[in-house]
Amino acid sequence: MAQRVEHDFLGEKEIPKDVYYGIQTLRAIENFHITGIQLKSEPIFVQALGYVKKAAAQANADLGALDKGIAAAIVKASDRLIQGEFLDQFPTDLIQGGAGTSVNMNANEVIANVALEMMGKDKGNYDFCHPNNHVNCSQSTNDAYPTAFRIALINKLTAYSESLRELADSFYAKGQEFSQVLKMGRTQLQDAVPMSMGDEFIAFATNLREELSRIEDSKRLISEVNMGATAIGTGVNAPKGYAELVIKYLNKASGLSLSLATDLIEATYDTGAYVQLSGVLKRTAVKVSKICNDLRLLSSGPRCGLNEINLPPMQPGSSIMPGKVNPVIPEVVNQTAFYVIGADLTLTLAAEAGQLQLNVMEPVIGFSLFTSITYMTNACNTLREKCVVGITANATRTQEMVMQSIGIVTQLNPIIGYEKSAAIAKEALETGKSVHDIAVKEKKLVTQEKWDEIFTFENLIRPKFINS
Amino acid sequence: MAQRVEHDFLGEKEIPKDVYYGIQTLRAIENFHITGIQLKSEPIFVQALGYVKKAAAQANADLGALDKGIAAAIVKASDRLIQGEFLDQFPTDLIQGGAGTSVNMNANEVIANVALEMMGKDKGNYDFCHPNNHVNCSQSTNDAYPTAFRIALINKLTAYSESLRELADSFYAKGQEFSQVLKMGRTQLQDAVPMSMGDEFIAFATNLREELSRIEDSKRLISEVNMGATAIGTGVNAPKGYAELVIKYLNKASGLSLSLATDLIEATYDTGAYVQLSGVLKRTAVKVSKICNDLRLLSSGPRCGLNEINLPPMQPGSSIMPGKVNPVIPEVVNQTAFYVIGADLTLTLAAEAGQLQLNVMEPVIGFSLFTSITYMTNACNTLREKCVVGITANATRTQEMVMQSIGIVTQLNPIIGYEKSAAIAKEALETGKSVHDIAVKEKKLVTQEKWDEIFTFENLIRPKFINS
Amino acid sequence: MAQRVEHDFLGEKEIPKDVYYGIQTLRAIENFHITGIQLKSEPIFVQALGYVKKAAAQANADLGALDKGIAAAIVKASDRLIQGEFLDQFPTDLIQGGAGTSVNMNANEVIANVALEMMGKDKGNYDFCHPNNHVNCSQSTNDAYPTAFRIALINKLTAYSESLRELADSFYAKGQEFSQVLKMGRTQLQDAVPMSMGDEFIAFATNLREELSRIEDSKRLISEVNMGATAIGTGVNAPKGYAELVIKYLNKASGLSLSLATDLIEATYDTGAYVQLSGVLKRTAVKVSKICNDLRLLSSGPRCGLNEINLPPMQPGSSIMPGKVNPVIPEVVNQTAFYVIGADLTLTLAAEAGQLQLNVMEPVIGFSLFTSITYMTNACNTLREKCVVGITANATRTQEMVMQSIGIVTQLNPIIGYEKSAAIAKEALETGKSVHDIAVKEKKLVTQEKWDEIFTFENLIRPKFINS
Amino acid sequence: MAQRVEHDFLGEKEIPKDVYYGIQTLRAIENFHITGIQLKSEPIFVQALGYVKKAAAQANADLGALDKGIAAAIVKASDRLIQGEFLDQFPTDLIQGGAGTSVNMNANEVIANVALEMMGKDKGNYDFCHPNNHVNCSQSTNDAYPTAFRIALINKLTAYSESLRELADSFYAKGQEFSQVLKMGRTQLQDAVPMSMGDEFIAFATNLREELSRIEDSKRLISEVNMGATAIGTGVNAPKGYAELVIKYLNKASGLSLSLATDLIEATYDTGAYVQLSGVLKRTAVKVSKICNDLRLLSSGPRCGLNEINLPPMQPGSSIMPGKVNPVIPEVVNQTAFYVIGADLTLTLAAEAGQLQLNVMEPVIGFSLFTSITYMTNACNTLREKCVVGITANATRTQEMVMQSIGIVTQLNPIIGYEKSAAIAKEALETGKSVHDIAVKEKKLVTQEKWDEIFTFENLIRPKFINS
Repeated sequence: MAQRVEHDFLGEKEIPKDVYYGIQTLRAIENFHITGIQLKSEPIFVQALGYVKKAAAQANADLGALDKGIAAAIVKASDRLIQGEFLDQFPTDLIQGGAGTSVNMNANEVIANVALEMMGKDKGNYDFCHPNNHVNCSQSTNDAYPTAFRIALINKLTAYSESLRELADSFYAKGQEFSQVLKMGRTQLQDAVPMSMGDEFIAFATNLREELSRIEDSKRLISEVNMGATAIGTGVNAPKGYAELVIKYLNKASGLSLSLATDLIEATYDTGAYVQLSGVLKRTAVKVSKICNDLRLLSSGPRCGLNEINLPPMQPGSSIMPGKVNPVIPEVVNQTAFYVIGADLTLTLAAEAGQLQLNVMEPVIGFSLFTSITYMTNACNTLREKCVVGITANATRTQEMVMQSIGIVTQLNPIIGYEKSAAIAKEALETGKSVHDIAVKEKKLVTQEKWDEIFTFENLIRPKFINS
Repeated sequence: MAQRVEHDFLGEKEIPKDVYYGIQTLRAIENFHITGIQLKSEPIFVQALGYVKKAAAQANADLGALDKGIAAAIVKASDRLIQGEFLDQFPTDLIQGGAGTSVNMNANEVIANVALEMMGKDKGNYDFCHPNNHVNCSQSTNDAYPTAFRIALINKLTAYSESLRELADSFYAKGQEFSQVLKMGRTQLQDAVPMSMGDEFIAFATNLREELSRIEDSKRLISEVNMGATAIGTGVNAPKGYAELVIKYLNKASGLSLSLATDLIEATYDTGAYVQLSGVLKRTAVKVSKICNDLRLLSSGPRCGLNEINLPPMQPGSSIMPGKVNPVIPEVVNQTAFYVIGADLTLTLAAEAGQLQLNVMEPVIGFSLFTSITYMTNACNTLREKCVVGITANATRTQEMVMQSIGIVTQLNPIIGYEKSAAIAKEALETGKSVHDIAVKEKKLVTQEKWDEIFTFENLIRPKFINS
Repeated sequence: MAQRVEHDFLGEKEIPKDVYYGIQTLRAIENFHITGIQLKSEPIFVQALGYVKKAAAQANADLGALDKGIAAAIVKASDRLIQGEFLDQFPTDLIQGGAGTSVNMNANEVIANVALEMMGKDKGNYDFCHPNNHVNCSQSTNDAYPTAFRIALINKLTAYSESLRELADSFYAKGQEFSQVLKMGRTQLQDAVPMSMGDEFIAFATNLREELSRIEDSKRLISEVNMGATAIGTGVNAPKGYAELVIKYLNKASGLSLSLATDLIEATYDTGAYVQLSGVLKRTAVKVSKICNDLRLLSSGPRCGLNEINLPPMQPGSSIMPGKVNPVIPEVVNQTAFYVIGADLTLTLAAEAGQLQLNVMEPVIGFSLFTSITYMTNACNTLREKCVVGITANATRTQEMVMQSIGIVTQLNPIIGYEKSAAIAKEALETGKSVHDIAVKEKKLVTQEKWDEIFTFENLIRPKFINS
Repeated sequence: MAQRVEHDFLGEKEIPKDVYYGIQTLRAIENFHITGIQLKSEPIFVQALGYVKKAAAQANADLGALDKGIAAAIVKASDRLIQGEFLDQFPTDLIQGGAGTSVNMNANEVIANVALEMMGKDKGNYDFCHPNNHVNCSQSTNDAYPTAFRIALINKLTAYSESLRELADSFYAKGQEFSQVLKMGRTQLQDAVPMSMGDEFIAFATNLREELSRIEDSKRLISEVNMGATAIGTGVNAPKGYAELVIKYLNKASGLSLSLATDLIEATYDTGAYVQLSGVLKRTAVKVSKICNDLRLLSSGPRCGLNEINLPPMQPGSSIMPGKVNPVIPEVVNQTAFYVIGADLTLTLAAEAGQLQLNVMEPVIGFSLFTSITYMTNACNTLREKCVVGITANATRTQEMVMQSIGIVTQLNPIIGYEKSAAIAKEALETGKSVHDIAVKEKKLVTQEKWDEIFTFENLIRPKFINS
């Protein structure tokens, strides 16, 4: 394989002639192989690096910090990254040392060489377009990398939000479908009072829809970037007016509404927005996991469980037990939620470990957020498509359970008081009799008419206050 | 000791005649002794229970669900709780089973007996004022308890916010004091480029001030309550119009701006607001811990460390090493932060474990939030009073470090380019020479005039863009 | 209040004349108020400090490093601490800065003053017995504190082990009681194959008994101490032979089998044994929580749940729902488990934060372990006494569920094959028919004789292999 | 593409004719796409499935439960899996629902079809070798899957142990190399007392070597398997004597020393061994992270930090700061450690979520352990090869720091007492003078001869007890 030689201040290295990345990316390949998951697996991040490099070149050209011809070449090369080209030129492992320098240099090198090629120059002939002097002009890893990272996050969140919204909508639709299904509400796994299964599923929808606002909150925090901070926030080596201008170009290129942080020293090391976003992902994971726990519980059985609902059967459930079907979709979603909660801890540790003017642990913060958002998006889609839309209710059974329950005695409280109700409940429990028999027939505490007034479907699911 | 006898549907028990709580609280005392930390250690929570019971009685009276005389007695008794009386009547362990029933019944019983006493009746003579039928009228633990809990949280957060704000302000004041102190910025613990120590401390202030907005976000989420939901959100046993009315009275009594959740089924089991609040507490803990790490690092030495700043000496640092003084205040704050991060996990587990119509793990959610907010408040006050306000800077030393550093070569980039700068840096590192000597004297890449233009204090801390 | 004046190298302070602690403890009181939980709440730790100080004095006396008269006084004073005296003289907050210096000095000061008093001297007259020069002779906080801490842990673990063993035994006894109760086994909440309820409860016992060995493993690791390491493990200021001798005396005093770490530099900062112990506590918490989840699930109902077992009713379960009884004991144990899992994270963060020659975060490590062990001990006792011993089985119901289940078709696999069994299962599910009717009556795949051979109680709970 | 048709009790599906997996694997592909990381990425797990299926066939044949010809074919097919063939036939996502059923069926189907092919039959012609009836004979997912998983873990741990041992050895070798380097020990980041840099590095080795024993402990716990338990531990459908025999064959095939769990009901749901193993991985991660923190701190500078050691430069450290070199290898290892700590939480959540007779969350337990072990192995190798072996010491600088420090005053304690030493320290701190000048020249508390006796290199790093 033909090679070219590149050098940096640590020495020289041979690089295959046809690759677009350069010596620093090569060092990253050699240095970091922890996960085997490479930058190229996050195309949205490579695209975001394209936006950053393009906007920087434009701002630099306007401000005279970069030759207009070179700037134009960088813009064109960046546009090709934005379009999704050269993805295979990003082999850096997602977990790396160097606080993102390898990622930033990977982008600088690829763009420089694409630009050189478009200018008719040999790859590596950096006099005409240099990864550091030109592509990285007025930038440091410490502002370019997190800015690209934040753009990528915002774009990933948009797709994730849509999946979450669709999942919530699917629960809402089921809620409407089940609006006439009477069932027993349970608190602490003990029979409580009746409710509509429709309201139970609508509550799942409500529960998840709240997350959409939390994601929007996060996007707002993430939208504050530190471009122009350069190395540590003092803006060393960036021309006057650059920061504001580059944001303008960034928003134009990306279509987003990024804003410049007011304290660039702080913004350069702060990971607060990541912690907050991870907290939101965790919160949603907790909710989704709770919902899946409920789905598994409500569909338990078929004969020795609650058996209130049926999940669509997705695969034989056992290699030994014939006919067994398991709630495999909620199960895989539960596990995804556990991953996300664990990833939040990883990120928390990384955030706490930042020292002085930079948080060096940003790559694992990226790893945690990228995998969590991807997995959660997949989980939401899976749960909706392969489970929620196909759920059916066992309405006869759930209604029978209500009427044979003891919990309905609560409805008598306003008429006969808590203590007499408790006595009925106790007797029912001990004797196996129904509340109706004890209250109406034996103890005659309630007339049959009053009973009928209280125990209508409508009054059970949306109780009016009925007293004696 | 004289005893009275009370009963519930599980049987009878003797209770000391002079206590205001009743049989259910007694059972809670017998059943739960995990932490030894009792409800009475959170007066703000007992007060909040007073608000809830008062407002419920008022709404019930208005709606005819409660005799006006009994309601008036309950209001008066509740007012005494609100004033801080009867705190010692709340012995329930903060970690309990029963999803708060013991706490709610503790309040119901104390209020009932205080009311009875004020009515000239014997304690325990519940015909005249019954814990369940009257004090708990139109309520369930499942709405009364979380509503009181949320009121308590809001009030605790207000005090905590103030401590955090004062801490941030103390960093800001130090930042202004240190505005003329030149020091080396560091990324990845390696010398980077110069900065002002003032900006470093102002960044700490910025970092913490952002948390104040996050706390306000949390308070908004926490302000949504489910009063009127009763057992599971269907509002069983609550009169029409009760929910809206009780919120009105609650806001009047507490001075807060609570609102009614729109989906009461969901709101009755949802713990999202707690997860979000805990996430904010964690986020602040992460930031405070990072800042304390920096303070410890910057004050390391005195002779074999960075020695940039001096923390006020608070106590001899060693039982064996004379004269040693340790950064004990940041250390204790770091540890508090670790507690808070751990408590967030506890809360997360509890939130995920909620099943069906109620989250039974709310007491440990309360335990986590109460301790975290208290400890963080204490930590903020401690850090400010006993450390930040007394920090001094070793300005001569920090300035000398800057000028003898290699990192200042970055300032030459726009003039001589990254590669030549790197060569100077490498030579400096290998030979021990200064950047100035190599760049100006030996290699004559920069004139002394240009050097002097670049290396002013003002240009080092707020660099202008200077090129050749 | 009469005061005496003490000084240290930071200055002078007035101290109430009658307290036994001195100026450094007073500084600790002033500096640290985070949790309000004081050293005195862990008598076993104060006792352990007594062992350490006693053994050190004995070794020092033997080696000529300490005047024999002073040593004797220190031994006597330490013995009084060991006996439980002077507990109220240990007001230091459990979470402190200074890596335990305040705790060590608290002990040094109390012992010095007790010794002085016994010698007929005034408190504070340290020429005759000095906290540092004499009580702390040949020691540093960095070896004395962790050694005492480890002794305290071992003694706490012994009590905890006993509680856990008793809990396991109570499950085992229930298992024997339920040995003839046939019930449906469930995997993934779906009906699986039959089993004996006795085996289910015996499995709980097995599950917990394994923890006893893990605790013993931990005690072994904790038993390795670094006495004699002094400040950083080089043993500076300790006489030759001291380390070995002090261990001998420590073991004599405490009745334990402590050993000296082989690498004292490492042992002085290493927190591995704490991480391991915390991991064991977490593991047990996970298991106990899983068991409590099962108990709550198996006792769900009474009419709309599994209703296989009855937990003893401990308190009315609701302020609104009459007759409701909740599984409050498992619930409180679940929450304790969540606390322990969170505390493990706190400890992990503290362990990771150790830098260079000492882990400064040891106090919060102590806080985490002390509270976790105490709470777990309380939880084990509570679960046993107030729940497990009173559990009863609904044997008729569980047996009926088995015979009406579809899961029993698995027993037919060896005779008719997986696919035919699956067809029967499917038909049963769709039609509501019993497996028996389909297999024996309709499809005649199994004779009634073969069926009877297979479906005996004994064969259902301990299946023999029966094929065609 | 040519297709064949397969069916299960949920229906029929077309499968590409040339694939070896069958309908259930196809359903798994359709159902689970969360991570995109497939079973094939863990060849050691596929191999372990081969061991399990081979041993089961052998035992079944011996006991007459399986036709000897079919058994022989299964054995041969399994051997090919063991050899690493057919890896690409394992497309199941590592995070799945179904508690491993898809993985077990994937293996059953591939082996059945490989066997059929070797028997000259068409793929899918399962009458001659059936995935359930034959390959899975006497097994359930619930015993076959965890047994294979445990075999895979043991084999992965063996490789990991070796990497960890080599890493520890590399620290030990550096320790020997640095044995004559005098440096300042630091506690709480403050100068403490002198030590040898050799001892500091040997302590790193000691710290890590302890982990090797912990890994061995874990392997012992993991070696207990539940083969023969079948569905829930009752051994339904397994012939008498099968469990013992299959273990014998398993050990023969795998070369391991697996043992049969004594309580198979418990063993079928217990995840204790995984929790313990994950705890060990976390413990090692904590230690490795602490060591990397130290390496980064000790190499901080080059001019404005501690600058005690030099890490080998691996890549340019900045896109903007010329000549900057960062500790990228420790940084990537820190981040790996954070991943492992997060993965331990994921696993903990999964372990706690197990219900009744099976822990359905085992796949994510597998995901956590597989990734953690792989990443830690990579991290150990990277840290050793690319960092530790190339570390050099700045011995002149570290020695100078010692002699100009105040901390060396501790050495004078036994001669002049703690209080006088403290006074010297205080004066040194305030005036900038050296301890020597104050103690020997000014205050004449120590003669020059005594000073020289104390302050030898040998006495500083391994202090003898010298008193007046």
